Amino acid sequence: MDIDILDKDGITLVTLTGDLDTTSSRDVQAQLLPRLHPGIQWVLELTGVAYMSSAGLRVLLSLYRSTATHDGRLVLVGLSPEIRDTMEVTGFLNFFTAFEALDEALASFGNGEA
Amino acid sequence: MDIDILDKDGITLVTLTGDLDTTSSRDVQAQLLPRLHPGIQWVLELTGVAYMSSAGLRVLLSLYRSTATHDGRLVLVGLSPEIRDTMEVTGFLNFFTAFEALDEALASFGNGEA
Repeated sequence: MDIDILDKDGITLVTLTGDLDTTSSRDVQAQLLPRLHPGIQWVLELTGVAYMSSAGLRVLLSLYRSTATHDGRLVLVGLSPEIRDTMEVTGFLNFFTAFEALDEALASFGNGEA
Repeated sequence: MDIDILDKDGITLVTLTGDLDTTSSRDVQAQLLPRLHPGIQWVLELTGVAYMSSAGLRVLLSLYRSTATHDGRLVLVGLSPEIRDTMEVTGFLNFFTAFEALDEALASFGNGEA
């Protein structure tokens, strides 16, 4: 799992590449949680993630909750059809704002969308 | 995917063996939905299901809803740790009653548990 983190214009762009399984989920959580700060705005780019285990879903939920308690905003980009479908049918997707493309996600911060 | 269906003492026991993916989910749905009747009581034995795609989750949800509209009861048995964990973290497990062992599931009908 490659974890690339880029801070730009007040937005933290995290690009994950590889499978989000038990081991890599732990790495992601360890690298991302210390970056939390009040009002954090971040984008999780998941185009390169073909497989997400339940541990991966748990990390997403953890990030979502931590972000909410910091009055921040977390946006997902590039969910694979299978992952998106699993999140949709279980109702889990309702927690998140998800975009297909990165430019849509970035634009969503600019116009004050909730 | 093997789909075994056994009617016994007013309970329909469905044993699935194999992966619950798009194709097999369609088969399961096609074989099970015609068995719906008012007050149906059924047990889905999933010990032999190692992998469940989003299509499989969708079939579970469909069975749950159809059973509820028929004032019936659907119980799951033998969810694999990974499937159970996915259902749990997404909140999807809340829809269902799940047991680890078949005898517990069968006993739950006997004592009038909801």
